Amino acid sequence: MSATATPVNNGVNVEALLGAREALTAAPEAAKFEWRATCEWQNGTHSTTDVEGFFGLGEEQKHRTRYSFDVDHPEIFASEDNGATPVEYVLVGLVGCLTAGVAAVAQNRDIQLRSVSATIEGAMDVRGILGVDTDVRNGFSGIKVTYRIDADASDADIKALVAQSQKRSAVYDIITNPTDVRVEVV
Amino acid sequence: MSATATPVNNGVNVEALLGAREALTAAPEAAKFEWRATCEWQNGTHSTTDVEGFFGLGEEQKHRTRYSFDVDHPEIFASEDNGATPVEYVLVGLVGCLTAGVAAVAQNRDIQLRSVSATIEGAMDVRGILGVDTDVRNGFSGIKVTYRIDADASDADIKALVAQSQKRSAVYDIITNPTDVRVEVV
Repeated sequence: MSATATPVNNGVNVEALLGAREALTAAPEAAKFEWRATCEWQNGTHSTTDVEGFFGLGEEQKHRTRYSFDVDHPEIFASEDNGATPVEYVLVGLVGCLTAGVAAVAQNRDIQLRSVSATIEGAMDVRGILGVDTDVRNGFSGIKVTYRIDADASDADIKALVAQSQKRSAVYDIITNPTDVRVEVV
Repeated sequence: MSATATPVNNGVNVEALLGAREALTAAPEAAKFEWRATCEWQNGTHSTTDVEGFFGLGEEQKHRTRYSFDVDHPEIFASEDNGATPVEYVLVGLVGCLTAGVAAVAQNRDIQLRSVSATIEGAMDVRGILGVDTDVRNGFSGIKVTYRIDADASDADIKALVAQSQKRSAVYDIITNPTDVRVEVV
């Protein structure tokens, strides 16, 4: 970079993230996070879930504000469509995770992003959830994410950005690998 | 049920769902759904994702309205906290899916629900996403969901409700089993 070049700024504080990496290498206990949500059933397939507190860096933390989400099913499922479906929330999480990663990796690689947009599509045979055919899985048969990225970099460098984001993505890992889920009634 | 009993009403149209099950047994092509979202990067780790159209029952469908979600990271990650984190969206999806299932199964089993609430906790060692230790996975090390259900049923019947909901849950399947995810840049 020449002395007169405009510094790359994607709005990601990479220095802070690299500092956190060093700090957590020295103090691995602080890296243990717990993310949480609380759900209240409303009626039918409609529920409301709040996100606010979480645990990390050895203590209780809070978001700047409480985020509240309505989850429901569409009218063609004989529901009232008071919110996005559960599986759409999963798509929102995956594409948001990959996109944040693209910005962070671009910053770290001195690549200025101009625009990043993505579509995400999850295919599902609903015979699974309806119990028509036990050979059909309940979840997605596959997910496809398509990025359009305008950046100050070659096509190869842009593809490498996206590949690195996948490699470090929490939600990509959650969806492509199994996670233990325990459900209890108290 | 005696002739004077109040009919069970959890707001779920089970007759319609059982009708759909029969219809899709006869016409499996109509069961092929595609759920979608479109994401626009804003700045830093902040993106906005919209959910509106989807495909199912052989044609394009739309939600009653467009649902829009801000995804971001908290201030302790040197971000601006303009929305819930990607992994919290996954928790919202899972608990919303299981809760809708509890209501639907209760309706099918003639169990009147009075209240259903749940907390969901996802444990994560952030040394994975920060690249501190490649032996640490990026995603959750485990998820715990805890239900409190007030219903016109025995404890055993309530536990069986929740178990059946897990068995038919799309998001429970997505998180506990691997899904193929393809990411492309165009």
